[in-house]
Amino acid sequence: MSAYEKLEKLFKKKNALSGASAVLGWDSAVMMPDGGAEVRAEQQATIGVIAHELITGAEISDVLDTAEQELSSLDEWQKANLHEMRHEWQHANAVDSDLVEAFSLATSNCEMKWRQAREESNFGLLAPSLKEVVNLSQKIATAKGEAFGVSPYDALLDQFEPGCNSEIIDTLFADLEGFLPDFLQKVLEKQAADTSFEMPEGPFELKAQKELGMSFMKALTFDFERGRLDTSHHPFTGGVPDDVRLTTRYEENDFTQSLMGTLHETGHALYEQNLPKKWRSQPIGNARGMALHESQSLLVEMQLSRSPEFLIYALPKIRDAFNGEGDHWSFDNFKRLYHHVERGFIRVDADEVTYPLHVILRYRLEKAMLSGDLVIDDLPASWNDGMKELLGITPPNDKLGCLQDIHWPGGAIGYFPTYTMGALAAAQFYKAAKEALPDLPEQIGKGDFKSLVGWLKKNVHELGSLKSTDTVLKDATGEALQTTAFKDHLQ
Amino acid sequence: MSAYEKLEKLFKKKNALSGASAVLGWDSAVMMPDGGAEVRAEQQATIGVIAHELITGAEISDVLDTAEQELSSLDEWQKANLHEMRHEWQHANAVDSDLVEAFSLATSNCEMKWRQAREESNFGLLAPSLKEVVNLSQKIATAKGEAFGVSPYDALLDQFEPGCNSEIIDTLFADLEGFLPDFLQKVLEKQAADTSFEMPEGPFELKAQKELGMSFMKALTFDFERGRLDTSHHPFTGGVPDDVRLTTRYEENDFTQSLMGTLHETGHALYEQNLPKKWRSQPIGNARGMALHESQSLLVEMQLSRSPEFLIYALPKIRDAFNGEGDHWSFDNFKRLYHHVERGFIRVDADEVTYPLHVILRYRLEKAMLSGDLVIDDLPASWNDGMKELLGITPPNDKLGCLQDIHWPGGAIGYFPTYTMGALAAAQFYKAAKEALPDLPEQIGKGDFKSLVGWLKKNVHELGSLKSTDTVLKDATGEALQTTAFKDHLQ
Repeated sequence: MSAYEKLEKLFKKKNALSGASAVLGWDSAVMMPDGGAEVRAEQQATIGVIAHELITGAEISDVLDTAEQELSSLDEWQKANLHEMRHEWQHANAVDSDLVEAFSLATSNCEMKWRQAREESNFGLLAPSLKEVVNLSQKIATAKGEAFGVSPYDALLDQFEPGCNSEIIDTLFADLEGFLPDFLQKVLEKQAADTSFEMPEGPFELKAQKELGMSFMKALTFDFERGRLDTSHHPFTGGVPDDVRLTTRYEENDFTQSLMGTLHETGHALYEQNLPKKWRSQPIGNARGMALHESQSLLVEMQLSRSPEFLIYALPKIRDAFNGEGDHWSFDNFKRLYHHVERGFIRVDADEVTYPLHVILRYRLEKAMLSGDLVIDDLPASWNDGMKELLGITPPNDKLGCLQDIHWPGGAIGYFPTYTMGALAAAQFYKAAKEALPDLPEQIGKGDFKSLVGWLKKNVHELGSLKSTDTVLKDATGEALQTTAFKDHLQ
Repeated sequence: MSAYEKLEKLFKKKNALSGASAVLGWDSAVMMPDGGAEVRAEQQATIGVIAHELITGAEISDVLDTAEQELSSLDEWQKANLHEMRHEWQHANAVDSDLVEAFSLATSNCEMKWRQAREESNFGLLAPSLKEVVNLSQKIATAKGEAFGVSPYDALLDQFEPGCNSEIIDTLFADLEGFLPDFLQKVLEKQAADTSFEMPEGPFELKAQKELGMSFMKALTFDFERGRLDTSHHPFTGGVPDDVRLTTRYEENDFTQSLMGTLHETGHALYEQNLPKKWRSQPIGNARGMALHESQSLLVEMQLSRSPEFLIYALPKIRDAFNGEGDHWSFDNFKRLYHHVERGFIRVDADEVTYPLHVILRYRLEKAMLSGDLVIDDLPASWNDGMKELLGITPPNDKLGCLQDIHWPGGAIGYFPTYTMGALAAAQFYKAAKEALPDLPEQIGKGDFKSLVGWLKKNVHELGSLKSTDTVLKDATGEALQTTAFKDHLQ
């Protein structure tokens, strides 16, 4: 067996463990009763430590070295796979098993505390375990920063979006910060002068909401032989490429929540289901990073689903599902509803204009928490100050403020920026797809998404981690990640 | 750290992996789309091999030896725990990782094949993969038989019911074979002369069936903070003690299926939820074996739920759930319905009188398959011959014959006898509980099961694996496993 083959075998094993862990993570959010949390945390920590030890064993470093000296025997995909293996190894090898275990247990525990703290809008309940998570994140970030020769924050960022750094983000975000506040003001003024939207009146049967969502998933080519749709507190996409677990959430009086949640997650799910089949068990078979992942969900949710041509296809189905009749169910009202802009407290409910401002706030705060400039006890006050500055509103309580997101309790510092990077990329991809597929609007109006998904498959999904995010973008759209297409889209 | 403490740490890790695997197993049967089967099989095999390697590492044998030389420092539970560790190690150490992996993949594959073969009543579809499973089972049985100094079949039996052997089973089954055929004949004659039962007419709303089942679970003290009720093709109890996953199945025209399934599994679930809290992560904290496990489910399903006093409590609730009115819903008709005896093809639908005959058939056949006396291609014919001999009927097809059970495709040879051992033990326990709790019938009539469950908790559940099955039985009922109480119950 060659050194490279040894590594493939090893990473196949690691991939099986990560997949098991992903299904258990889905179960924790969708199925698990509260009493199961403690033992589940043990299960996840144990699997995490074993996966970590698998690829950091004493001999692995030598095997990687040897494989890298035998590059000529490898094809393009194998070379790129080896590159991903080295990258995973670098991340894993920078930290020891005890830290991996402590972080896994601390984040499981903090997520449970967060549920209660958020429910009761009580930051004091969360603070001690969040301190623990941030403290361990600092250790991990410092160790990985040293290993990669980058700043601690950039080392965390690299976990979610390989190759990205604060400089890139600062440039993009400065551009948006220069544009969005004035633009938001203009939009709000224009909106105030226009006819306001009317919310279709419920209740909307949950079963009908689910069936409608599933019919859109099917039209978008989601394969139910290799995936499911379920319910959770926050929508997410979990599982593994051959068993993709989507979730959404249902409000009896507002079907748009479940629907947009389902459409968003379907974008993620298509990426997963269409990853290269041949490389299922290897690092190269994974999605490239969270920026591209989010670009796929936002392309479906924000670019496609809010287009007039999608509404031509979808509105009759929506009306049928809920027996909708009258003005509230008109094409124009739905357009106003889906393009409504508002300064709000909650990121996941935000429109496309205000969303990046929510992300910028979190980016600032998580950098400050990680560096120690912001102590955890001051988080609620800093949050509220930032909301006032960026969005002009002050949350009345922490549930609508710094307790709204699970990311930090779950240990995901360095993740938020990828949401906005994804929004920018989504606009770029959709623009390029429309240029490449002149019949696209007509097809969409008929509910035929095959050529759009085919384009995404070819240009993004099927590449797995073969190319960098920037190369994928350049090859597909002619440009690296930038703000122009996004700003054009907003305008 | 003492040798014993090292072992506790190690087995805690192994227990976390087994727990993860149990939840994934539940997911496979309840949630997983078909397309996920292949990758799930990889996940399960990987976890299985890692768990196996954890406790068969080169140094473990010495640590066990050392711990066994330091017995004086251990308390009663720790000593018994060490005994269980040695037992697990013996089973694991008898086979190598490659065999463990091959068996895990073969059984996953064979289970999937079985679903299709059963659906299509096509034994030919199953035969090749069943041969593989039986072939690997023979290897495992031979290796373990040598390690334990017992016959190959007894070595497999010991996996499910430690300490049991064919001699014990042969004695019990000979007794039943001498009694049941004549008794069955008499029951059928008496039944033919009596008023026949009338099936209440459906449809019965599935939601109402589920709510009714859950209300009985609650009354029986099932803790929904640490467990769930879901739906699967065959009812089972999975998960882990702090997160017990029950399933049942629903027929729109027959609510008794889902109800009796739920009650049966609740018996299993109470055993799991009441296992000793202090020993959750250790071998001693596990249920003693499958005979006692089945005794708990059958005690609830067959002894308790079919008693007149249970019907006093349950019938009004059943009537309420389905708006049942008229003769079909009378106390006497339900008694007849629940005590109806019939020669049928399907084991899981069998009554208490014919059930052991189904088990005896499987016991004979699995011993013959394992020894090689019965080749897999002859299984359908031998099955039908056995049914004719034992029950006097011949299945019209293999779906109603040798394709009905998942056990052999799943690799569980040596499991079936524990069903009938459980039925015998259930009768013994229930008799003893009634003697110990004179107010029991009255309490049951009021839907108060606390003292019954308390008695089971003290005499069975909370003991974990501290004592042998026979000692548990003797301490609780005054006698080792025997057929008297069961035969009395039938009569």
